[in-house]
Amino acid sequence: MYKVPVGVLGASGYAGRELCGLIASHPTLELAFASANEQRGQRARIGPAEVTYVAAEDAPLDRAEIVFTALPHGASAKWVGNARATGARVVDLSSDFRPGAGKTDVPYGLTELMRAKIPGADIVANPGCYPTAILLALAPLLKSGAVVPGATINVSAASGVTGAGYSPRPDLLFAEVAEDFRAYAVGNEHRHLAEMQAVAKELGGRENDILFTPHLLPVARGILATITVPVNEYADDPAALWREFYAGEPFIEIADQPPSLRDVVRRNVVRLSVTKAANVRQPTLVIISAIDNLMKGAAGQALQNANILLGLNEQAGLPA
Amino acid sequence: MYKVPVGVLGASGYAGRELCGLIASHPTLELAFASANEQRGQRARIGPAEVTYVAAEDAPLDRAEIVFTALPHGASAKWVGNARATGARVVDLSSDFRPGAGKTDVPYGLTELMRAKIPGADIVANPGCYPTAILLALAPLLKSGAVVPGATINVSAASGVTGAGYSPRPDLLFAEVAEDFRAYAVGNEHRHLAEMQAVAKELGGRENDILFTPHLLPVARGILATITVPVNEYADDPAALWREFYAGEPFIEIADQPPSLRDVVRRNVVRLSVTKAANVRQPTLVIISAIDNLMKGAAGQALQNANILLGLNEQAGLPA
Amino acid sequence: MYKVPVGVLGASGYAGRELCGLIASHPTLELAFASANEQRGQRARIGPAEVTYVAAEDAPLDRAEIVFTALPHGASAKWVGNARATGARVVDLSSDFRPGAGKTDVPYGLTELMRAKIPGADIVANPGCYPTAILLALAPLLKSGAVVPGATINVSAASGVTGAGYSPRPDLLFAEVAEDFRAYAVGNEHRHLAEMQAVAKELGGRENDILFTPHLLPVARGILATITVPVNEYADDPAALWREFYAGEPFIEIADQPPSLRDVVRRNVVRLSVTKAANVRQPTLVIISAIDNLMKGAAGQALQNANILLGLNEQAGLPA
Amino acid sequence: MYKVPVGVLGASGYAGRELCGLIASHPTLELAFASANEQRGQRARIGPAEVTYVAAEDAPLDRAEIVFTALPHGASAKWVGNARATGARVVDLSSDFRPGAGKTDVPYGLTELMRAKIPGADIVANPGCYPTAILLALAPLLKSGAVVPGATINVSAASGVTGAGYSPRPDLLFAEVAEDFRAYAVGNEHRHLAEMQAVAKELGGRENDILFTPHLLPVARGILATITVPVNEYADDPAALWREFYAGEPFIEIADQPPSLRDVVRRNVVRLSVTKAANVRQPTLVIISAIDNLMKGAAGQALQNANILLGLNEQAGLPA
Repeated sequence: MYKVPVGVLGASGYAGRELCGLIASHPTLELAFASANEQRGQRARIGPAEVTYVAAEDAPLDRAEIVFTALPHGASAKWVGNARATGARVVDLSSDFRPGAGKTDVPYGLTELMRAKIPGADIVANPGCYPTAILLALAPLLKSGAVVPGATINVSAASGVTGAGYSPRPDLLFAEVAEDFRAYAVGNEHRHLAEMQAVAKELGGRENDILFTPHLLPVARGILATITVPVNEYADDPAALWREFYAGEPFIEIADQPPSLRDVVRRNVVRLSVTKAANVRQPTLVIISAIDNLMKGAAGQALQNANILLGLNEQAGLPA
Repeated sequence: MYKVPVGVLGASGYAGRELCGLIASHPTLELAFASANEQRGQRARIGPAEVTYVAAEDAPLDRAEIVFTALPHGASAKWVGNARATGARVVDLSSDFRPGAGKTDVPYGLTELMRAKIPGADIVANPGCYPTAILLALAPLLKSGAVVPGATINVSAASGVTGAGYSPRPDLLFAEVAEDFRAYAVGNEHRHLAEMQAVAKELGGRENDILFTPHLLPVARGILATITVPVNEYADDPAALWREFYAGEPFIEIADQPPSLRDVVRRNVVRLSVTKAANVRQPTLVIISAIDNLMKGAAGQALQNANILLGLNEQAGLPA
Repeated sequence: MYKVPVGVLGASGYAGRELCGLIASHPTLELAFASANEQRGQRARIGPAEVTYVAAEDAPLDRAEIVFTALPHGASAKWVGNARATGARVVDLSSDFRPGAGKTDVPYGLTELMRAKIPGADIVANPGCYPTAILLALAPLLKSGAVVPGATINVSAASGVTGAGYSPRPDLLFAEVAEDFRAYAVGNEHRHLAEMQAVAKELGGRENDILFTPHLLPVARGILATITVPVNEYADDPAALWREFYAGEPFIEIADQPPSLRDVVRRNVVRLSVTKAANVRQPTLVIISAIDNLMKGAAGQALQNANILLGLNEQAGLPA
Repeated sequence: MYKVPVGVLGASGYAGRELCGLIASHPTLELAFASANEQRGQRARIGPAEVTYVAAEDAPLDRAEIVFTALPHGASAKWVGNARATGARVVDLSSDFRPGAGKTDVPYGLTELMRAKIPGADIVANPGCYPTAILLALAPLLKSGAVVPGATINVSAASGVTGAGYSPRPDLLFAEVAEDFRAYAVGNEHRHLAEMQAVAKELGGRENDILFTPHLLPVARGILATITVPVNEYADDPAALWREFYAGEPFIEIADQPPSLRDVVRRNVVRLSVTKAANVRQPTLVIISAIDNLMKGAAGQALQNANILLGLNEQAGLPA
């Protein structure tokens, strides 16, 4: 059976490896190459597959219909160009082409919200992990006009350490992370904030700032975002808006109970709960949003976008 | 050398064991008894000490100058009465006598804020772990009048599993907690909320509600609270207010960098940072507050209060 | 497409849940029932499936072609009988029918070694997790006659906590297991020893005792066994014997490097390395054997056996 | 009160930091300097102390009565010489002067076994962490002559990741170590083997080889060694030999139950159990030995040796 060749640049990082594993078990894709400069020539076992890394320079870009670029932010743009020059279409997992980065003509691959723009794209800017969890949670509410004008949306989120990449930083050593929990980019300084704020404004939250505090969890994978949004009034069933908005979406789950990481790990889903806050005068919704940062937050959503680019079933090869 | 005899009721739980360990290495206290009904007759090694548990019924309450009650909420009040009947003074670690529980004449042992009321007390209501982390962080700001009137104070906090007690619940098994992270009491329903709200109002936040979302961390001990407070305007040095308010306090640290759990674990301190939020129109302070839930959040603060009751050095036997 | 109905008795424990998940994604099986007495009537999400538990009494045993019994040791035998009475064939995950238990006519489902006896069986006694890791590692050597006669085979093994089952024991709480490591059944007292010793003798190690020390790891899943076996002499390539013995086996991997848990978790494989010990006068092989205790050590192997009983592809539905 | 100045070279690694913390709470020592080349000029909080790192070149070696060298193996010998040239006495935590390294005139600081040689020494070679756990466990038996002549002593041991040092190796990242367990130096190739074998021979095990397999645990600190030793016959009370041998030793505990890591973490002790193996023809003792690799396995024992060098109470400043 014919399989569509795709390639991965930056295949030794956590997102790159996850992609290679997904491609290996995808029904109609096959891996044309996997690049990793420092590991060039080495073989690695990735899920069900064995991969031999090549240097990016040696990657046969022209043999791939889709090239996934899972390179560090800043280093990606050049390779997106190289891949495009061979005619390949590109799903870029870096932030180089995302909203807020100043190159606004590239479609943003937050699939459930932007699906219409993807099929004809040459390049898709795959969203960041935090923005995926947070924007998919906020979209129905922002579009509904129910948020209190001028109110700040408060987001406290926590991510597993694979979100920080496969980089040998001393502060990411096991003995430093285990039994610890810490906030970072405190004071609304996270580099994904511009991406979130730009998309949120587009979705209707023109007057609503986001105040975002990320934390580092002693777990390998997963993001949980706890979002509080002041609203004009409470609906009887606060989750009804989300259920309607996302009706039929295979990768979005509106849960009765607040989701936890183990509900979503190794699955390409966003799982959400919406609860009315008691004991406060200002009506406020508490949204809990959980994803696997390497799946729906990176490799899974990238593959979801690639499926659309190739005219395949959007769910192909994706664990729901 | 004469040592003051003190007793612990409920000495097999996490807080009770921590207390026994602190007492064993305290320079002037000695353990008169340690009760644990199910483990009656058993010996246990607790830090530097060996303890033989007795049933609460058999505890020689009359031999202790101070009785610490570390019993389940609801079960404590009766034993506080029993201990008082023998003339012992009591530090009660349950919520039975705390603000918000309806018995308001018992001093609340949030030591740094309530120190004056403790020396003459017969009973001290030792604060809950979340309230300790959160109220000590908020007090200077609430008293200063700088909080936006009517604004909601948002608290997202996470606790290690010892905060849930030494109870064999399936959801607290290692295989259920490891690699997970979950919110609970979502929608501002935590049973410590009344305690926090009551004290916050007393401190000056009459018009400010608290919206509190706790989370369960895959760590044994520690609480980190991420608190956002809308303020009227920014001071140049936002932490100056806290440094002045807590000047000379041995157990309160105002840090330049956001604290993490490993800064405070096994220490009887609250460690705080205060940061101005960027990228929002509404000036808002982000306060990060970290404690060890078993130390400053339970046993350590209980001992700090006992030191005051007995006229000892407040810091005696407490790891700073 | 017609699917073969199978049922799971004891579907709320770790092995039972793993089985339900595997059945849900199996190409030709479907779940006829899942029993769990305490959770009767409750719905649970298990991997890709939603299950509603029934009491064992209410399970429609007669609708299943295969019944998996994942009940506690001792409680299983009765339900094996009940299932057999309806004509179903049974894969029993308990130890009730295993070698060493005194009921020797039931085939032992250590598939790679006993494959011939399974197709015609009414009941298959699915092996324990430690015996699977250890016996598959030892079999080629025991059959080869290379072990020093009379020598003791030393096994030090460590298991994740799911090996202890989903039971709310205080010693299995997160705060008790995290950052700990402990041996148990010290002194060769583990209840699986008889099973291992009985099968080892059958495989040719008539004169070789096994000295087995298990340990509890702070991980959810996985077993690593470190086995040292005195041998008469060293072969040039010590692993050649294993590669030949297991040639063509899809679920057995002979690795060049010692395997670790992450090589095998969520996969139905045994991964082995064989190394000559240096710096000792007595030639001794060091075998490292890794499995996922819930997959090849329980549910995966049970499904592998069920595939054989049903005449299906042995690998169907099993992640290699 | 006069305090004895001591210095630490290599104070940013795990053992060096532990030493600085112990010195800070020691009743009669004070820290003269703490070197860390890469962190020179930085301040760090270490337990109860704040330290400002200097480069080793700038360390005032002449101001210290004792210099602790906690430098990498191979890099230590030169700095031991530099410190000696100023008249300071040295406790060297590296392997450069240990038995098996070829420089045999330096006393080996396995305190309980070699106490007599330490007071007059200029340099003490502080033992490795594995050798400490294993040799203290074996010594009574080796000296007793009860080991079967020619028998191999089997040691399977597991260490927390701080044993691998504070080095940013990708394989020590949280996401690589959590939920994993792996053997290393498989085939009796560990670099501490020569140290163990040399001391074991001295203690009487002339004919007994050690077969040692270390493992990496997903915990921060602690070593558990599981040791099996074939013996000529069983004593009625197998632990009596150890209790007698170590009578009065404050840092050695002979336990009735097998020790686990949490019994010893943050304490300067070795905790041992001795059990007769059942179900084997060859009488064999199973010894479980637990230490904290950073305390009795490194910094604690170094301080114990320094206390002796200085004529202080051997237990001063050490948590038992």
